[in-house]
Parts: sequence; structure tokens; C-alpha cells
Amino acid sequence: MMKLVFLGTGGSYPSPKRNVLSIAVKYQSEVILFDCGEGTQRQLMRSSLSFMDVDKIFITHFHGDHFLGLPGLIQSMKLNDRDTPLYIYGPEGTCSVVKGLLELGYFNPSFEVKVQDIQPGALLKFKYFSIKSFRVDHNVPSLGYKFKENDRPGRFDKPKALSLGIPEGPLFGRLQRGGSVEIDGGIISPKDVLGPPRKGRTIVYSGDTRPCAEVAQAAENADFLIHEGTMDSTLSEKANEYGHTSVDQAANIAKKADVDRLFLVHISPRYEEVSELLKTAREEFPNTTIPRDLESFEL
Amino acid sequence: MMKLVFLGTGGSYPSPKRNVLSIAVKYQSEVILFDCGEGTQRQLMRSSLSFMDVDKIFITHFHGDHFLGLPGLIQSMKLNDRDTPLYIYGPEGTCSVVKGLLELGYFNPSFEVKVQDIQPGALLKFKYFSIKSFRVDHNVPSLGYKFKENDRPGRFDKPKALSLGIPEGPLFGRLQRGGSVEIDGGIISPKDVLGPPRKGRTIVYSGDTRPCAEVAQAAENADFLIHEGTMDSTLSEKANEYGHTSVDQAANIAKKADVDRLFLVHISPRYEEVSELLKTAREEFPNTTIPRDLESFEL
Repeated sequence: MMKLVFLGTGGSYPSPKRNVLSIAVKYQSEVILFDCGEGTQRQLMRSSLSFMDVDKIFITHFHGDHFLGLPGLIQSMKLNDRDTPLYIYGPEGTCSVVKGLLELGYFNPSFEVKVQDIQPGALLKFKYFSIKSFRVDHNVPSLGYKFKENDRPGRFDKPKALSLGIPEGPLFGRLQRGGSVEIDGGIISPKDVLGPPRKGRTIVYSGDTRPCAEVAQAAENADFLIHEGTMDSTLSEKANEYGHTSVDQAANIAKKADVDRLFLVHISPRYEEVSELLKTAREEFPNTTIPRDLESFEL
Repeated sequence: MMKLVFLGTGGSYPSPKRNVLSIAVKYQSEVILFDCGEGTQRQLMRSSLSFMDVDKIFITHFHGDHFLGLPGLIQSMKLNDRDTPLYIYGPEGTCSVVKGLLELGYFNPSFEVKVQDIQPGALLKFKYFSIKSFRVDHNVPSLGYKFKENDRPGRFDKPKALSLGIPEGPLFGRLQRGGSVEIDGGIISPKDVLGPPRKGRTIVYSGDTRPCAEVAQAAENADFLIHEGTMDSTLSEKANEYGHTSVDQAANIAKKADVDRLFLVHISPRYEEVSELLKTAREEFPNTTIPRDLESFEL
């Protein structure tokens, strides 16, 4: 099970409609956050996810709308008796900022907060997926992230397995996990009953950036690109000047990178209505969505 | 015009229904906040108030649910081109905590943030009101606050003024502001046309505390007491152990202090429904309200 939940989709500061940025990926029982703006814990409480299940947090950069939800989330985890470590990753300065956050007021976490500054290009491998960071073009040190699920074994062909004389039961599981089995003196190997390996799904998140080659490159053929689209197409120059991207520019990157689907986030609070933004973006790249806060997508 | 807006009324950590603490007093064009938990800026945006009008913030203590909304609020003020100073007051440690908050990530406020540690018993006098702090009984250095409007001149008796031969116009204003006027050689002084002076209205806020004499004393005959009521009456001991008050204990303080009206806040997230809490409190002190988030009261 893999699900994308847009906890906050607004840019720079919150509005009544959109909270500041945080995007959750639920992979099996684990929740991974990308950015954690102020109020993210409450958005989690309003979503189908539990804030206690958050295991890893990837911060793109240290502008307030991307990280000020960290201390409150950590404190609420403590008040709810968390005892497992929390992992926080981000660009240079992450260790120092998180240290500062943990020393604010009267607070000591009851669990380990493991923090790591990562370099652009770093590849972090986990059990079921990896995360690769890449440098983006904002006004302060900023990273984008590529989430890549490990390739999965092919689909199990049950009729074929039965026709080969394998009884339904634990031997099915062994084959699915890559082991061979012996039936009537003959060896049946996984390739006999599994389809071709399935490519792991990829999600690329730009963070805040001007249009830049690094995002396009990381997103090449990705399943999902989550790109910032702070302003409308008439304000591209202004957006770029402030280190941001307009919705049409983001859609153009999605088109060039030939992704399957584009989600636009970091919508400026100046836009209460987004139908015009969406229309412009879809002219460039039809499979574009501007998610609402708390909207979720099974992948 | 004087209005009380409950921006966040929950205790310890937010819930979908209640955000963490912040209470706004709007006095004429000025907004004063008492506490500023995470998400307060967004609650302001959802209210009838403007976050840009906040002029003074009084923090009761440095547990996260009372102050973690400060950096986001200050950053949004900058992004909206604030240029007037913001005043922040709180118990010992306030200067140091706010300094830490302003150094988080990449941020420089565009306006002055004037911060002051205040002692219990300090009296701060402003143009139309004063704020007196008092020590309360929590687990870390904590203050309660008494807001006292200056006494106001009596009501202007217009028929009497006309009968004394004063023409409607600027002379009315002069008398209302305390000046005398000369009519046909006779002197008319304010006392001739004004009723008895009106006592300024008082609001007392407990912050987080066990039941304590200091709150009862500060609240004596107050118009409005805003007291924490973290738990129900069956959990008084537990509430007190953690430095808090149960709703019945808070109502008892309101009764002893003979206040006009009691508002209970810092409701634990364990209570989704508050009708039972309210019932218990009203048995002790009938004029009790448990405000919802964003509920406001003209005073």
C-alpha cells in the first residue's frame, strides 16, 4: 500500500484554505513526511494518518513554511509516549536548526531524534525504498528529493503454479519471496511462476525552486512529480526572481521529463481560486492536479 | 470596542476540534494576544481579526502549546511588509527564547521585535489599559495576567447639555474629554454633563496552573476570568499532579473571587465532547462558558 497525502499545499504563509507545506507518503505502515510547516501535526490529526506513525522527515530548506511544524510535532509525540527514534534529514544546517528547535523552552524528547545533514546527490537506502537528494535553485541551500520504491518481484501466476502441481499454501509464499521449491523430484524456480519484475514507483518532489535542470533530470520518466507552482503564468519573472516557479513553467518541466502525473503545490496565498492556474498548467501538461489540503491519492 | 476572541482553547497538544492556546483581546484598533501556540496565525486568519494588527503578545510560560506559534506569526508579518514594532512579554527566559526563535533557519524580521522578561507583580501601563502579571503554580516559571481597562469618564448627558445652552458640535467633545466650556459668560464643567465615572473592565487569565490563591486574588470581582480547566472533576488529583486544574476547581475559584463570568480553556484533547465538563462547572459557578475555537464575545 502506497499513498500520497497532501497535508499542506500553500506557499510562504498559510491561508484559511491551505496550510503551509507538508506532504506525507504512507508506505505500508510507515509515514514519511516531506517538509513540515507550522500546523502539520494538526493536519495529520485531521487526515487518515497518525502523527505517531511518522518515522522519517525530509526537509527541503529552512524557510519557516517548510520546517516550523517540527517542534510541536516532536513535543506531541512525547506527550503520547513515543519511544521509537524519529529520523530527520535535510540540507546543510539541519543538525544545527533541529538542535535549536529541541532547546526551545522547557522540553526534552523522550525518544531519540536522529538528525542528519545530507549533501546534494546523497542516496539513502531503506528496506523498501531509497531517497535520493538533488540540489535545486532557491535562495538558500535547498534540496529536492526522489523517492524510489525498490523494484518488486513480478506478479505470481497462480493458475500456472497449480498446473505445475504446487499445492496452495506456504510453498506459494516461498516462490513469491524468491525461493525455489521441489515437487515430485523436479525443481520449480520463481521465474517459472512469476511475471517480469515490476519497476518500483517513483515520486519526485522539487521543494522551492526556480525552474531547474536538476528537477527535470531527477523526474525523468517518474510516476509522480510534485513541483512547486507558486504563481500564475503572467508572473513567471517575479516568481523566478524570488526563487520560485510559475505553474506553466512547472508543467513544462513535467512535459519535458515525461512524467506520468504532475501535482502542483506551494500555491501562493494570493490565489483563493485555482481553476485558472490549473487550466494554464493543463495546456502544457494535461495530467496535472492541484491538490487540496488533506486530499490523498492511492498510488 | 472591546472583544474577546478565543483563537485556540485546547490543552497540551492540538486536536481536530481545538487548536492550542491563544486568546485575543481586541481593544479599539489594537489586538493583544495572550499565548501564541502553534497555528495561531492561521486561527487569526480564520477569525474576524487581522494578524497584522497584533501589537502585543503576553506569553504565560514556555511549554510548546503556549508559544510555538510565535516564529511563524512573526515571519508572516514580515512577508506582509510590517514595519511597526511588535512587543512580546513573558516570564523569565522570554528574551532568550525569542532570540532563539528569531535565529531559526533563514530569517530576519523587517521590523523591531521588542521583548521583555517581566517579574511576577509587574504592572505595565499602556494608553487605554494596564496589564499586571502574577505568579501562578505550574511546573515551570509561569505567569497569569490581569488586563484592566482604564476607568472611563461617565456617560455624556446630551439633553442636559442642550438644556444648559451648549450647541451640538465641538463643545460636546471638549466636555467629554474633560475640558470646561464658557456659555454666555458662565462656565460649564464636565461634571455638569457627565454621569459618574465608569469602572474599567477587567479580564484575568490564569495560564497553566494548579488551583492557586494568586489567581483568586487577581480575579477578585473581575468581569471575566479565563481559567484553565484541563480535566474533569474525577481527575482533579491527576490534573494537580501535572500542574493543572480540573473544571470544578476552576469554577470554585470563579465563585470565591465573585467574578461576573468564567471561561474555561486548555481543555485536554481527551474530551471531544464538553457538555459534561460544562455541567459540572456550572453546578459550582453557573455563569461558566467553554468557548469553541474562534468563538468571540463583545464585552
